[in-house]
Amino acid sequence: MINIAVLGYGTVGSGVVEVIRTNHETINKRAGEEIKIKYVLDLRDFPGDPVEEVLVHDFEQIVNDPEVDIVVEVMGGTGAAYNFAKRALEAGKSVCTSNKALVAKYGPELMEIAKEKEINFLFEASCGGGIPIIRAVNSSLTADVIDEVTGILNGTTNYMLDKMNTEGADFNTVLKEAQEKGYAEADPTADVEGQDACRKIAILSSLAYGRFLDFEKVYTEGITKITPEDMEYAREMGRNIKLLGTSKRVGEDSFYALVAPFLVGKNNPLHSVNGVFNSIFVHGNMLGDAMFYGSGAGKLPTASAVVADVVEASRHLHDTIPVNWSNKEMTLMDPDSVEGRFFVRVKDTSLDEVDKAFGKVDAVIEPDALPEEFGFITGLMTQGEYKERVKALGDNVLGMIRVKD
Amino acid sequence: MINIAVLGYGTVGSGVVEVIRTNHETINKRAGEEIKIKYVLDLRDFPGDPVEEVLVHDFEQIVNDPEVDIVVEVMGGTGAAYNFAKRALEAGKSVCTSNKALVAKYGPELMEIAKEKEINFLFEASCGGGIPIIRAVNSSLTADVIDEVTGILNGTTNYMLDKMNTEGADFNTVLKEAQEKGYAEADPTADVEGQDACRKIAILSSLAYGRFLDFEKVYTEGITKITPEDMEYAREMGRNIKLLGTSKRVGEDSFYALVAPFLVGKNNPLHSVNGVFNSIFVHGNMLGDAMFYGSGAGKLPTASAVVADVVEASRHLHDTIPVNWSNKEMTLMDPDSVEGRFFVRVKDTSLDEVDKAFGKVDAVIEPDALPEEFGFITGLMTQGEYKERVKALGDNVLGMIRVKD
Repeated sequence: MINIAVLGYGTVGSGVVEVIRTNHETINKRAGEEIKIKYVLDLRDFPGDPVEEVLVHDFEQIVNDPEVDIVVEVMGGTGAAYNFAKRALEAGKSVCTSNKALVAKYGPELMEIAKEKEINFLFEASCGGGIPIIRAVNSSLTADVIDEVTGILNGTTNYMLDKMNTEGADFNTVLKEAQEKGYAEADPTADVEGQDACRKIAILSSLAYGRFLDFEKVYTEGITKITPEDMEYAREMGRNIKLLGTSKRVGEDSFYALVAPFLVGKNNPLHSVNGVFNSIFVHGNMLGDAMFYGSGAGKLPTASAVVADVVEASRHLHDTIPVNWSNKEMTLMDPDSVEGRFFVRVKDTSLDEVDKAFGKVDAVIEPDALPEEFGFITGLMTQGEYKERVKALGDNVLGMIRVKD
Repeated sequence: MINIAVLGYGTVGSGVVEVIRTNHETINKRAGEEIKIKYVLDLRDFPGDPVEEVLVHDFEQIVNDPEVDIVVEVMGGTGAAYNFAKRALEAGKSVCTSNKALVAKYGPELMEIAKEKEINFLFEASCGGGIPIIRAVNSSLTADVIDEVTGILNGTTNYMLDKMNTEGADFNTVLKEAQEKGYAEADPTADVEGQDACRKIAILSSLAYGRFLDFEKVYTEGITKITPEDMEYAREMGRNIKLLGTSKRVGEDSFYALVAPFLVGKNNPLHSVNGVFNSIFVHGNMLGDAMFYGSGAGKLPTASAVVADVVEASRHLHDTIPVNWSNKEMTLMDPDSVEGRFFVRVKDTSLDEVDKAFGKVDAVIEPDALPEEFGFITGLMTQGEYKERVKALGDNVLGMIRVKD
């Protein structure tokens, strides 16, 4: 019998209880032992809910109970969640979490404690919800040197961009709709400003490249500036605008990472990932292209990933599963020295002026619906070079979006 | 130091040597020890090839060497490959294989021996080439009751169908082209008749549902009857014709499985998987939809998966990784009792006659290019019912393809 304690009976916490109750037979078989929820910690009471039987209000009861083998942290945040996760690990209890903020900020420290104690700190649900991407990068793609990770890592913004595209609505209208449907939170900042995707690409990159990527150093741009006009251009070009978290290995010890909206081309497998789905593309030097697709959020998919971690932790109660994540910090390139192509919208400008600024440009797009302006895609250049060259067009530049083929 | 022996220096075998040589640093780090290729077994000589140093012609040398920890079987077939794999396991050496025929036929027996010996029989590369689908189903999606596995499991036929679609060419023309490019073998039977996909869906289903699916019991239909006219209809409907291997859990202990061409709808994530890529869709009762995409074949992607197994076997030299595959055989439903929708092409028939045979049909398609005929999609019915009803249209039926939304 494996005793677990679930910290937090919110959306994911109640999902974890539901998954274990519904699939207990197969889960116990997979774990090799019966998984029992001994405690659920929450400050609130839930009268009439079956969880009442195991509900406690005090973490001390859990951390001091030697029978508790695994602690599931699904409270969120980096305050009590950090304190509890650390104390649980120090007490010799493996921790499984869905908390990306916790992993992105304190992952190295918590993994170090787990290693010392010969237990596990697992976080499959922190990236990509139910998609088993953490285990894929950490335990499956072990024969490859991974050189790129690029993902649609936030379901809320993907849903919103999709709606802006299909309905022609603007950002604020779609945000309101998403909030009404429960796809966006009352304070949508973490989603729409790219902060959520930033933590996730930091976690995935740390695992993929074996160096710690500090999320605070990742250049991050959200989707708040995307307009219906941008969507019009995207349609004309047969591209989709997606908020991507992306990182690349560009040399032995040289990496870059950023979060920003991209105009994704038709032949990219991320192009047609719509709605609240997430998808993560990985390139390995032997494997080539691979992609992992699924529900990036939601109560049950996220809980499914947490419980899969509980099964894994049960199979490894007294040994640490190797994690390809060193405390050595990743050296990030200056974003201005990263190469790319840039889509630019201009008004009151001639093609001659554009060519003078950028050299011959690849594609010129003139949507019928937008007679006052046109757009073009630059050749390959560093961001620094782009910034320098675009100065020549001055205030006539209406906007820029990065291009991903 | 972990000593391995590679059986077979063909495409995959030389890929395994290349992957280990190229990525030895990260692979050794992931495995926790140095992986050394002590032997490569092949009947041929390779003068001048660096493999000469470790080349042997006699399996006895490998099986009798107590220093060999892991045997990599990449010869193919079920003759010597079976004999060698079995003897290696009996001698206490873990076996990693890319050989789907071996796994589909002798998997249960070989896994049993591995379990007795507390070693591992691993076969990530047997399905989906470099896509880490075996480990995902076996070790990641452990909190779910899986109720569907559907995949594009054969790159050759996916490439061919893609070409027939984009070039309007017929089966034989495209096959010849695929053979010239090395995408299809001189004897293409195993690919184009669906036998390859059949073994793969049998392996994946056995793991997903925890019961052994005998591939010989899976109804299997290839792509040889697909015509340019069928492609015309698919285009008209915005669908793509894909050879799918699919299996579903329809009750507690009731399953079905089949391999056949399907008209895949736009909203299905398998719709846009083109070229030689493979993709496997999995549905879990908690997880919902998930999909895994990548190179389904090719020297290096396949070798990457084999070497990932070698890393896994190295981490578990003396304990068996739990496998969700019992020797209990799966009870398959009679294919005629499986429900589906059917696309039917007819000539010299009126819509009245169709309605009389099938009741009101969902969609009627009349491609301009094919004035002599039309096509329709039936409502949901069992295959048995379809067979019964279609009799009324007699010889006027030009063809039938299953529908997957």
